[in-house]
Amino acid sequence: MSHFQVYKNLSNATIKFIKSLRLKKYRLQENSFVLEGEKNVTQLLTADYHIKMVVCTTPFFNLHTHLLAKQEIEVFQVDEKTLSSLGTFQANNAALAVATIPSNKPFELSKRPYSLVLDDINDPGNLGTIIRIADWYNMGGIICSSHTVELYNPKVLHASMGSFMRVNVYYTDLSAYLAQTELPVIGAFTNGQNIHDPQTTWPSTGLIVIGNEAHGISQQLIPYIHQKISIPRYGHAESLNAAVATAVICDNFSRVISRGINFIQK
Amino acid sequence: MSHFQVYKNLSNATIKFIKSLRLKKYRLQENSFVLEGEKNVTQLLTADYHIKMVVCTTPFFNLHTHLLAKQEIEVFQVDEKTLSSLGTFQANNAALAVATIPSNKPFELSKRPYSLVLDDINDPGNLGTIIRIADWYNMGGIICSSHTVELYNPKVLHASMGSFMRVNVYYTDLSAYLAQTELPVIGAFTNGQNIHDPQTTWPSTGLIVIGNEAHGISQQLIPYIHQKISIPRYGHAESLNAAVATAVICDNFSRVISRGINFIQK
Repeated sequence: MSHFQVYKNLSNATIKFIKSLRLKKYRLQENSFVLEGEKNVTQLLTADYHIKMVVCTTPFFNLHTHLLAKQEIEVFQVDEKTLSSLGTFQANNAALAVATIPSNKPFELSKRPYSLVLDDINDPGNLGTIIRIADWYNMGGIICSSHTVELYNPKVLHASMGSFMRVNVYYTDLSAYLAQTELPVIGAFTNGQNIHDPQTTWPSTGLIVIGNEAHGISQQLIPYIHQKISIPRYGHAESLNAAVATAVICDNFSRVISRGINFIQK
Repeated sequence: MSHFQVYKNLSNATIKFIKSLRLKKYRLQENSFVLEGEKNVTQLLTADYHIKMVVCTTPFFNLHTHLLAKQEIEVFQVDEKTLSSLGTFQANNAALAVATIPSNKPFELSKRPYSLVLDDINDPGNLGTIIRIADWYNMGGIICSSHTVELYNPKVLHASMGSFMRVNVYYTDLSAYLAQTELPVIGAFTNGQNIHDPQTTWPSTGLIVIGNEAHGISQQLIPYIHQKISIPRYGHAESLNAAVATAVICDNFSRVISRGINFIQK
């Protein structure tokens, strides 16, 4: 139990530091992010992250002392009001953690059938929801364009419901990335093959490109798309939300692949 | 062109009135809602709503005079900065409209295969996204529990991307509603029939119940559910977002029904 230090007071400098991490500028400068909530923080304590500090209430401390004691971290025990004032949640009766942002590095794609490629997803709620969807459907990971919203934005982390700890995410230049991949690249368009059509075939592994909320897939990525697919429309909405479209596509190829039908072995 | 009156100035009382409609309390008191953005307002002008006033920029006015002239409404021509300050959007270079909230009344369900039943959806983004999904998949309408977030919340209208003008929404007590319906009632649970399983059969018409984001379907509605269904999970996320789950379910039964397979005629 000697690894961790417990403090009862937060200095003004620490308060200022934690609050500064609401802004991307300071997250990049400090290479740190904040994660809020009991479930998130307990998961983070058992995942492969470098945690700098945990600010928590006494009930959280008493319940999770064993997790905190495993880490070489500073722990601050504060009241609920102080804790809630530090984060972006309306209320937090448990904990927040400050951790180091892991380095942005490419990951091994080959183990699972499909990975996602996000072309400038702007809305943090959409990115977080897409990470949660990728976790549910066991995607190989997510390749984001350099202009996709930042992963450690508090709204992204919140919408991901902890899934960001289980899904690999890598930011890069998509043209260069798609130019060198050996995997088939599938893109969602309004004029592609109907994903409900039993005649539509899927490669056994590949990348699925999801376009920007307003502009779809960029012109410069079109040459790298091998197969265009579409979600059939039965009514009148002009489009579906980007995260919703991602889920419907993941659901369709998971259904097809899990039944061992309608896909082409590489 | 004599039907409509055009003003160049907004009184302080009008500014205060428009801004007050950001709050549910005043929307209910005034029985009015605000809709923002060029596409939304032009659609509203051709839909079946009673519009009280339109505040717009000169370019919007010039482009859509024919639509404005059809209505017995007050039109205020203002600069972009004034317009943006009135609404909830960060910027609005076109228009906003104030319209009467239509009365909450039951609608005829029988024309389309399925309608949705929302059991206390809390998040305005989720409700708006579900309305957009219902429009895409041509649902018969949406029955909301009395505690579901209010339809005319600006975040709901924004996320619906105009679909709220095409989808019937009715708020009522769900226990009473489900007790009297003659339609089969399907509910999404974690332990239901796998919607990917070709052996799973669907009724040819019915109601689909979607539960609250945190608590799922309420205990008191369970006795009214005839069929439990589940979205199969391939990875590790504990759950899907409520709007995402709605889309995946709508997509699966649309696929099955459109192919004329796997459903039981009533």
